[in-house]
Amino acid sequence: MPDTVRMTLDEIRDLSAQVFVANGMSQSNADIIAGVVTSAEADGTHSHGLFRVPGYVACMKNGRVDGHAVPAVLDTAPGLVSVDTKSGFSPPAVVAGRSLAIEKTKSQGIAAMGLRNNGNLNALWWDVEQFATAGLIAIAMSTTRSLVAPWGGDTSLFGTDPIAFACPRADKPPMGFDFATSAAARGEIMVAAREGHDIPEGWALDKHGNPTTDANAALEGVQLPFGEHKGNAIILMVELLAAGLTGGNFCFEADEQALEFGAIDGGPSNAGEIIILMDPSGYHDSFLERIEGLFERILAQEGTRIPGDRRYASRARAHEDGVNCPANLHNQILAMKAG
Amino acid sequence: MPDTVRMTLDEIRDLSAQVFVANGMSQSNADIIAGVVTSAEADGTHSHGLFRVPGYVACMKNGRVDGHAVPAVLDTAPGLVSVDTKSGFSPPAVVAGRSLAIEKTKSQGIAAMGLRNNGNLNALWWDVEQFATAGLIAIAMSTTRSLVAPWGGDTSLFGTDPIAFACPRADKPPMGFDFATSAAARGEIMVAAREGHDIPEGWALDKHGNPTTDANAALEGVQLPFGEHKGNAIILMVELLAAGLTGGNFCFEADEQALEFGAIDGGPSNAGEIIILMDPSGYHDSFLERIEGLFERILAQEGTRIPGDRRYASRARAHEDGVNCPANLHNQILAMKAG
Repeated sequence: MPDTVRMTLDEIRDLSAQVFVANGMSQSNADIIAGVVTSAEADGTHSHGLFRVPGYVACMKNGRVDGHAVPAVLDTAPGLVSVDTKSGFSPPAVVAGRSLAIEKTKSQGIAAMGLRNNGNLNALWWDVEQFATAGLIAIAMSTTRSLVAPWGGDTSLFGTDPIAFACPRADKPPMGFDFATSAAARGEIMVAAREGHDIPEGWALDKHGNPTTDANAALEGVQLPFGEHKGNAIILMVELLAAGLTGGNFCFEADEQALEFGAIDGGPSNAGEIIILMDPSGYHDSFLERIEGLFERILAQEGTRIPGDRRYASRARAHEDGVNCPANLHNQILAMKAG
Repeated sequence: MPDTVRMTLDEIRDLSAQVFVANGMSQSNADIIAGVVTSAEADGTHSHGLFRVPGYVACMKNGRVDGHAVPAVLDTAPGLVSVDTKSGFSPPAVVAGRSLAIEKTKSQGIAAMGLRNNGNLNALWWDVEQFATAGLIAIAMSTTRSLVAPWGGDTSLFGTDPIAFACPRADKPPMGFDFATSAAARGEIMVAAREGHDIPEGWALDKHGNPTTDANAALEGVQLPFGEHKGNAIILMVELLAAGLTGGNFCFEADEQALEFGAIDGGPSNAGEIIILMDPSGYHDSFLERIEGLFERILAQEGTRIPGDRRYASRARAHEDGVNCPANLHNQILAMKAG
């Protein structure tokens, strides 16, 4: 029996949607979230792809996330959209507020969409790409759950709180990035532990608060911010904007709520997210032209790349050849089709 | 003869303003920029204090920066203010656009002020603190001049492009940060070279593109971003927003222009800056109360601090005891009083 199963993107989308509906999700939410899973697989960010499907099902089964949630969109101010995700998955909330947010950004020059009561942490690249495809610059930040110590401390308080940025380009798909503001994503440490290799210095402290390169000791301890005290400052900004400003949960609050459910699905509880949107033609008309000059100068140096390029290369291959799914994960998901 | 001269904050302000006016600055610009110098000295950020005065004089003398510039404020869109600094110093431009930017933020929920043609790089903390004191959340980013290689490359293209954040607090001065998005500020490497000690790994490459811990080799080579590829992504975002969006110069463009003047003053030429402003009561009324709960949990861990606390401790001491200025710098500035 082979270790992997080759799937087309359509097969990934259909299977995911079918499993979601069979396990308590509305068809309209399932269509959106199956799209997220498919995009993540296509882009090579498997940690937000099929790998998530069992967790999404688990958190609907235990009642922590409502698969039928209908997000409520509020026109809060001329430049602000507020979306209550209603303890549902966050992608339908982004879709629900999107057209109002785009309209405001185009008329005001800048706008923001705040989300609260997010049941899951979405791949933020999916959130920002759709705004950049609509011609806007987007910055998204989200809280998650407590896994990261504040700089100088030794106890988890912040999350791996991601920040994402997308920017439109002329005649090309948007460029941008999406990364955890912790030194490493949780999954990277879990993989190291499973495969029995060390992690780099600076990723984590053990449960006694000492620096460790042992992945298992790191999982029992606490993760560290990226970029030392500067990255710590960025994480704090993410907490203040994504949760403090929007009314979503800080990571420590999300964690307290997740404990009620045993947190078997590992996602955040009622986290917050802020998406800041800007019209690139707000100040002058040559933005798209000018930034290509910068990108050319970056790529003129050997060893550099424009953030996002690897994603598009993966996407092109996936559309052509499909994607490999681990056979055991494929079987696990197939078994969920019956609900 | 003592190595340092003790000065009161009033003395610093008066001397700076007098020297600026004697060397080609309007009185109104001098009052503002002397205030910046004084605030920086009070806060312990001496690299933006009296240390800068000779450079400011030099770049007025060589004609690169116009000390008499009157910034032009444009009401670009309901959420956007644009300020043309007219090749003057940037603080008067921030002051010129401030009331319109505050008014827009309070009515729209979010707004931005873009600056272009900045003759100097200001301490961004000064730029953001005044908005936080007015009750708003502020994020500022600025281009500088080419000193930093893009991640994977070996040739300067980006700047030490700072990012600053300030957030109001209830019954306390604003919290926040202001740091270079390079691994180190230029001045830190210059100090290491002068004092003959090594710099940490990860700060710079030598002129052959190899990692170096030799400060002199680093000054002949190129600096590196903070936080590896993640910090590199943040720098790129700063370039796109602070310069691409506002119409200010990318760092490589600033550098090309500075060469015309021999760049003896070391500042940027017609750089750009973006200040994103948000109303903390835009989404709900308990922002100020909620964030104190987060700060309490941070400070409950030994070894942590809230960004900005060290600055306020220094400020309190400076108001009481004054500030020490190196005697040779003091003499150099005194000699400029005659113009």
